[in-house]
Amino acid sequence: MNLYLSDVRRLTLWNRHEARLREALEAWRRRTYWYAFPEDPKEYGEEAAAEGEAAFRSQLNKPFDRLRQSARRWLLSDEVSPYTREPLGISYPQMEVAEALFHAQEALSQWRWVPYTERLGLLMESIQRFSKHFFEVAHATMHTTGQAWMMAFQASGPHAADRAVEALAVAYGELSQIPSQVQWVRDFGKAQAVVEKYFIPQPEGISLHIGVSTFPVWNVLPGLYASLAVGSPVLMKPHPRAIYPIAVVVSILQELFEEYGLSPAIVQLLPDTVAEPITKTLAEHPLVRIIDYTGGTEFGNYLEGLPGKVTFLEKAGVNGVLIESVEDMEAVAKNLAFSASLYSGQMCTAPQNVYIPREGVRTPQGVLSYEEVKAILTKAVDDLSSHPKAAPAILGALQNDAVSERIEKLASTAAAVHRAPQAYAHPQYKAARTLTPIVAEVASPEDKAAHTEHFGPRLLFIPVESPQRGLETLYQLAREKGMLSCAIYTTDSDFKQKAIRLLAEAAVPLSFNFRGQVFINQSVAFSDFHGTGGNPAGNASFTDASFIVKRFRWIGVRDCLQA
Amino acid sequence: MNLYLSDVRRLTLWNRHEARLREALEAWRRRTYWYAFPEDPKEYGEEAAAEGEAAFRSQLNKPFDRLRQSARRWLLSDEVSPYTREPLGISYPQMEVAEALFHAQEALSQWRWVPYTERLGLLMESIQRFSKHFFEVAHATMHTTGQAWMMAFQASGPHAADRAVEALAVAYGELSQIPSQVQWVRDFGKAQAVVEKYFIPQPEGISLHIGVSTFPVWNVLPGLYASLAVGSPVLMKPHPRAIYPIAVVVSILQELFEEYGLSPAIVQLLPDTVAEPITKTLAEHPLVRIIDYTGGTEFGNYLEGLPGKVTFLEKAGVNGVLIESVEDMEAVAKNLAFSASLYSGQMCTAPQNVYIPREGVRTPQGVLSYEEVKAILTKAVDDLSSHPKAAPAILGALQNDAVSERIEKLASTAAAVHRAPQAYAHPQYKAARTLTPIVAEVASPEDKAAHTEHFGPRLLFIPVESPQRGLETLYQLAREKGMLSCAIYTTDSDFKQKAIRLLAEAAVPLSFNFRGQVFINQSVAFSDFHGTGGNPAGNASFTDASFIVKRFRWIGVRDCLQA
Repeated sequence: MNLYLSDVRRLTLWNRHEARLREALEAWRRRTYWYAFPEDPKEYGEEAAAEGEAAFRSQLNKPFDRLRQSARRWLLSDEVSPYTREPLGISYPQMEVAEALFHAQEALSQWRWVPYTERLGLLMESIQRFSKHFFEVAHATMHTTGQAWMMAFQASGPHAADRAVEALAVAYGELSQIPSQVQWVRDFGKAQAVVEKYFIPQPEGISLHIGVSTFPVWNVLPGLYASLAVGSPVLMKPHPRAIYPIAVVVSILQELFEEYGLSPAIVQLLPDTVAEPITKTLAEHPLVRIIDYTGGTEFGNYLEGLPGKVTFLEKAGVNGVLIESVEDMEAVAKNLAFSASLYSGQMCTAPQNVYIPREGVRTPQGVLSYEEVKAILTKAVDDLSSHPKAAPAILGALQNDAVSERIEKLASTAAAVHRAPQAYAHPQYKAARTLTPIVAEVASPEDKAAHTEHFGPRLLFIPVESPQRGLETLYQLAREKGMLSCAIYTTDSDFKQKAIRLLAEAAVPLSFNFRGQVFINQSVAFSDFHGTGGNPAGNASFTDASFIVKRFRWIGVRDCLQA
Repeated sequence: MNLYLSDVRRLTLWNRHEARLREALEAWRRRTYWYAFPEDPKEYGEEAAAEGEAAFRSQLNKPFDRLRQSARRWLLSDEVSPYTREPLGISYPQMEVAEALFHAQEALSQWRWVPYTERLGLLMESIQRFSKHFFEVAHATMHTTGQAWMMAFQASGPHAADRAVEALAVAYGELSQIPSQVQWVRDFGKAQAVVEKYFIPQPEGISLHIGVSTFPVWNVLPGLYASLAVGSPVLMKPHPRAIYPIAVVVSILQELFEEYGLSPAIVQLLPDTVAEPITKTLAEHPLVRIIDYTGGTEFGNYLEGLPGKVTFLEKAGVNGVLIESVEDMEAVAKNLAFSASLYSGQMCTAPQNVYIPREGVRTPQGVLSYEEVKAILTKAVDDLSSHPKAAPAILGALQNDAVSERIEKLASTAAAVHRAPQAYAHPQYKAARTLTPIVAEVASPEDKAAHTEHFGPRLLFIPVESPQRGLETLYQLAREKGMLSCAIYTTDSDFKQKAIRLLAEAAVPLSFNFRGQVFINQSVAFSDFHGTGGNPAGNASFTDASFIVKRFRWIGVRDCLQA
């Protein structure tokens, strides 16, 4: 019996992409170094950079007219470049929430019955097409988030695309392990029973995706593609200050759906403004069953408390560092300074609390005192921040004014400030909203500042009585506030083992002795899980099986042919 | 680095059981006919039946002293045989909730670090050992639930054991697809980064399992074994009227854990009484993170609303039957009469609402009128109920007095009663609490009685304007009240397709044209999902990937060896 809305052209797409998706699934299971899209911009052809920049320039101060959705009105967005401080001047089509839900409901009744192979084929194709727009999206990301150009390219381009492929690969693994149809035969002696069984994956319902201003693509694509893969249409509600980057992705999907005979409303862009938010109206609507979200803890907890929703949340945490012993303190300091400075610390995985034993830190050359460790770390931040090329390339700009206000507040409450935060002069954008990291100190792990996330460029030194007390402090902090990254430096394998055993129990993702070109705030698709989903910083992880299977159900249908 | 509590004897167990578990996983993925334990009692050896009965007899009126847990006091249980109406007279050890949680917390810190392979080896071994006790547990089940002997044997023995193996197989599939350790190597041109990565599965925390009085083993083993497989200790809180059957399973597990150098508190039995329940105290305790439950909707909704818990709930539903067209109405009636009578309808999958088109039912011999269909169905129930051998073997006894009160209430509110419920004389147990099915009718699908579960022996006829309206009625009912089974009879493949397309969207598990030896209320391990988890009758399914992966998290640990 044909239950599905099958289409030969869509099937052709699946045949084209199937091998690659299998390869991705194998990579996810292997977890060694692998990528679907190279991170070097040069790999995308000679014309791509210029074309992408031109596309960006020509979009500024114009309506974003690439969407396949109706416009009750055009909404001039709150997007302002953190580099030029000028509004992007882009308007987006807006419709009523009820209208969007009506379209989504219609799209659901179609999309849920497209065979999952055809869905995966379409979605793989969309990522392929998206890769032709990496440069435009890089500029759009840079001028909404404040990320430096190269980071904007990588985070919103290949790294995000890789996470999207990863979500599709895991969905493929889960959906393909149960057959769509089998014949169950049992011999009862006198009679033989033959039952035809169908296993039909059905989504929980319509998805809502609530985007974040700092990573408008990277944090969105996993959930967006996971929901689409299992047959759930997505209402994409971007952050009002970072709409453009994800609008490009939505437009590519809509175009493709229409091209292949499907409703473009399988994904809809629902922009709003800071002044008139629509998120709660959407989230509370009974037809919305799945919610993906990245952002603050308070709003995340509100979403988690809504009855009857399946939520995938990344909230705030307080990330810790513990320095027990090192091979080379300068190398450690350089690495941590980079991690704290990257995108001015506006990353959920950026380090904040640096716990240093009062007794100092062992090195092959002897013990470095508490004061010496602080001095080396402070100098590394200083060196990076004052480097005329490194600073703009790494720090980028602040997404909004609240970041600097937050860092100033930390400066006023910390016990000591070893390095005052200050603007740096961006060589290209004179108006850029910049800030180099504060390096501050509090008197003890109990200090309130050590239990608060100061999202932005910062490092906070905190003395601990001993390395063991440092571990216990990390454990307590992770249980209380959550962590999306945790760095430990130790040359002692017993201490390392002890740290893993303790902190894994608090579901903390751990990084030991990161230095050189590997940084704790980076998690790579196909190898690293982003977050664990098991501590207060979030209830989901990119991309484990849970991230997929909570979005759909197997419906068993049994047809007794003979008995 | 060795993170785990490995043990060579436990590893030997794993080696012994690994091939069988792989076989089970393959069967689960294939979903054709397969079982781990044969359902024919004769397969268990000549002595087993007599030994099992003797064990049961010698346990009556004695303390259950097989547990490896402390006894602050001995609790005389509320267990009363539905056959003899005499108390079983068994007392169980009881401790304070706080004490049990203290032991569970200690057990958690051990069990979570036992390698999952060794856990699976131990758990497979426990099921093997449990199979030596199938006969005792069959008697214990019969004399607590009221199931007939053969059903008690199969449901609490091989069928439950198969579901346990199934849960372990799915856990094995999920846990083994991510490597525990890999080396990630990336060439940066001038430098090569080498990162050792560990992927550590960690349970959400301690599990609470809340048992049900009708299926004290079958409904428990999937969740019990799923939690144990992922490293979560389980507090087993049986229904106060059905403790003995699961107490045997707990004692086997505790003995095995102790024998293999582990804490017996990895699973603890926490009996209570009807008068002094402890379930809410347990469920609300912050250390309890996972809750499995089978039972009423009201208490299920209370559990679902508890903040911060991962719940696996099977609640009540209203199961529907729609007769559109048939090959052989007598065969259909016989099959439905059996399904409604099996264990006196005290099954979550028993049929209740039989929707019959007013226009009648098409057959190869012409249309049977609405009245004729009712008459044939009523006669089939009569025939089965009045059969001196079939009645006791199929109907068994009522678990408690509330069942007959409920059925009497239905008799008093229905528009018509075509067959009055009545006690039948059990040939072996004169005191048995028995009741044959009521066959009643209401005037329309809107009648309140058609929107209520009347758990017990019943069939309720409901006229519908047309088969299409029947489908729509089923859809609405499933969305409103939930369904754990739904039977449709049709010889029209277009109607069948329409039914699947509509009802799959309400996450209804569907059975078409069941007759002969296959019954809608039976779901078989390795082939049928029990429930979908997608409608109000429950949020979980035996056994999909969700049932496993929501219980644990992957913790990523990265150790930078070179950079």
